[in-house]
Amino acid sequence: MPRFWGELVKLNDALERAHKQFKLCVETIVTPVNKANNLIVSENIHAPIDLPSYSNSAVDGYAIRAEDTYGASPTNPIRLRVKGLLKPGDAPDLYGEIGFGEAIEVYTGAPLPPGANAVVMYEDTHRVNSEIEVIRQVPVYANVNLAGDDVKKGELIIKKGTQINPYHITLLVSLGVKRIRVYKPLSIGIIAIGDELIDLDSPLIPGKKFASTDILVEKYLEGLGFINPHRYGIVPDSLEELINALNKAFKESDIVITIGGTSVSEKDLVPDYVDKYGSWIIRGIALRPGRTTSLAIINDKPLFALSGNPVAAWVALEAFVKPLLYLWLGSKPPLNPYIIAYLRQRIVNQVGYRSFVRVYLEKANNTFYATPYMIKGSSIISSLAKTHGYIVVPEDHEGYEKGEQVKVHLLSNNISI
Amino acid sequence: MPRFWGELVKLNDALERAHKQFKLCVETIVTPVNKANNLIVSENIHAPIDLPSYSNSAVDGYAIRAEDTYGASPTNPIRLRVKGLLKPGDAPDLYGEIGFGEAIEVYTGAPLPPGANAVVMYEDTHRVNSEIEVIRQVPVYANVNLAGDDVKKGELIIKKGTQINPYHITLLVSLGVKRIRVYKPLSIGIIAIGDELIDLDSPLIPGKKFASTDILVEKYLEGLGFINPHRYGIVPDSLEELINALNKAFKESDIVITIGGTSVSEKDLVPDYVDKYGSWIIRGIALRPGRTTSLAIINDKPLFALSGNPVAAWVALEAFVKPLLYLWLGSKPPLNPYIIAYLRQRIVNQVGYRSFVRVYLEKANNTFYATPYMIKGSSIISSLAKTHGYIVVPEDHEGYEKGEQVKVHLLSNNISI
Repeated sequence: MPRFWGELVKLNDALERAHKQFKLCVETIVTPVNKANNLIVSENIHAPIDLPSYSNSAVDGYAIRAEDTYGASPTNPIRLRVKGLLKPGDAPDLYGEIGFGEAIEVYTGAPLPPGANAVVMYEDTHRVNSEIEVIRQVPVYANVNLAGDDVKKGELIIKKGTQINPYHITLLVSLGVKRIRVYKPLSIGIIAIGDELIDLDSPLIPGKKFASTDILVEKYLEGLGFINPHRYGIVPDSLEELINALNKAFKESDIVITIGGTSVSEKDLVPDYVDKYGSWIIRGIALRPGRTTSLAIINDKPLFALSGNPVAAWVALEAFVKPLLYLWLGSKPPLNPYIIAYLRQRIVNQVGYRSFVRVYLEKANNTFYATPYMIKGSSIISSLAKTHGYIVVPEDHEGYEKGEQVKVHLLSNNISI
Repeated sequence: MPRFWGELVKLNDALERAHKQFKLCVETIVTPVNKANNLIVSENIHAPIDLPSYSNSAVDGYAIRAEDTYGASPTNPIRLRVKGLLKPGDAPDLYGEIGFGEAIEVYTGAPLPPGANAVVMYEDTHRVNSEIEVIRQVPVYANVNLAGDDVKKGELIIKKGTQINPYHITLLVSLGVKRIRVYKPLSIGIIAIGDELIDLDSPLIPGKKFASTDILVEKYLEGLGFINPHRYGIVPDSLEELINALNKAFKESDIVITIGGTSVSEKDLVPDYVDKYGSWIIRGIALRPGRTTSLAIINDKPLFALSGNPVAAWVALEAFVKPLLYLWLGSKPPLNPYIIAYLRQRIVNQVGYRSFVRVYLEKANNTFYATPYMIKGSSIISSLAKTHGYIVVPEDHEGYEKGEQVKVHLLSNNISI
């Protein structure tokens, strides 16, 4: 029977304690911007140039000196001589400087020629051979995108701790930034523990089952984008073999996660290991499922001890491991968006625990309805594959009534119904 | 000046028309389950075995014949002889069959031995040497996870068109499935068009700018997980060079996307190409920004013509290209979750268009507030990198008032504030 767990710590307290009591030392590397998607920047990034880097026309029209148009109107057109046509990509000084009484035709995006300080739109001109009549006065900088309008040289554009997304990459490339410094992807070793487990290449014999929670952990962590998970396979219920596997995993990884082996009847393998070689920071969290979720430090490296039950392990990842990894990297856990739905059935929570209730979603008349997955037991693997999202019931809450509006977080980014 | 665009089609009509008028033929491939994350399955998948594959104990206790316990109570304990101890991973028949009057001790997860049909918990027994006294009667299947409780052999577990997530992989591995048939990742060629564009390896000279919208498109598509985007670099404003680039891209890709070249003053390169070699399905969509978004078919392959402006291109991806790719693969576009926020400023929409308004989010007192990004122009690259999400204003809506509750969709999965 599992050892006494003592009082379970609440999730927020567990996160705060784990964040405070342990500092993760992570190397930084310089990576091409193009390969940096989802990595976390380790220093503030400033704009090396203005964006746009040159003032350009926001419309099709004529670049002019604004002063030349003052007083222009349909009854008092002002004549300017057109020196040429500038297109996007042309050098600004292709026709030299614009003097008083001169204009250069420009297409949208074409650079503003030297001497010009505004653009008058086609609509406000009449073309007469190599001259135009301007029939409307324009102020300085009219119809011009000024250099630096988008980003100013030297401006802080990406803060330390930001996880890079495609829009950051686009901005960096626009600014001519080729390489940035990021935290090296965290290497996380994953070990599955249990005499009953076999891998996919073994024949299924009675009493054995295919290990899959370790693959869940691997795929979940890969999805975060700044982690290199590595599965170390299956270890039987033997302390000696576990020690060997953990030694190897710790040698090669920043962090290790064990799956199972925490309360397999009389064999509390991971606790035995931690008692011998390290110390606990968190020993059980008030999560349902996932109460055995624990964190220890072994020779200055973190060891997450997760349940072998896939649903309990998933809750541990979503609620504890994921936010903590962000915090340890000096980043903030991502926002967790949701869909508002009406509950089809009541949800009851055991007060004191934070519960993660998987639900199916249906849509009718543009409204979403959520039905809790009622089969109990965190060993029900299909409960994650068959449902769409989950509802979080906070520790101080007794649950939600049938018909109540709830926030349903989706299980992954690609859930459709 | 750009050619006349005619009446713009509404987004939903554009999607319906594009879905109906074109059938994408995509090869299927067999892939290891472990490599299938985010790919789309091309046939229904049924469970090859029961899950769990063997009945097992849900508790620590004694496997027995339920009939042996009938009438048991604290005042009428029933004695059974304990034949041995089964742990998870042991063969069910390690001690042979359970006969009447016999019990086998079992740990949680241990297989149910032959002959047993229930488990009595430790709490309901007293152990006396090699015997137990059962003090409570248990019904058949009490405390047992029956084979097939989670998934029944033959059950449809994943439908054709489903995009695989980590929970599907976990379920498939649990069922011993090693390989599945999926659509081959779509190859999408991306071509940036414009005399003003240079690549990151070129020196920045006045009038030129670094191409970045093509990288935005590449990274965005990579994020969908079932696409292999490939950038074909920059083509100048020359129909001949565009034809060469498109010929090469179409030869190597399922789909091609052009960036820019649709209304660069007198040079409507992509329209010229389409008029010569193919036909339009969609020529402009009532999107703001993104109205030039178009779709043509060239020799039975789709060509998306997107704006060179990064924000307009992003709206085209989010609103049109992404859902359409799912629909063409017989899948459904993913749900788009959101965060409810209060508007800090009014948003005005031009009725008839679907507007995508980028916003910053702030959090105060557990409530989110959204401030629209006010700088106009879809060329403002930093508007995507600096904001957190976007609000969609439907075609028939004039906008939202200051203080109104709105749904803010996040720009990527890793947005934090």
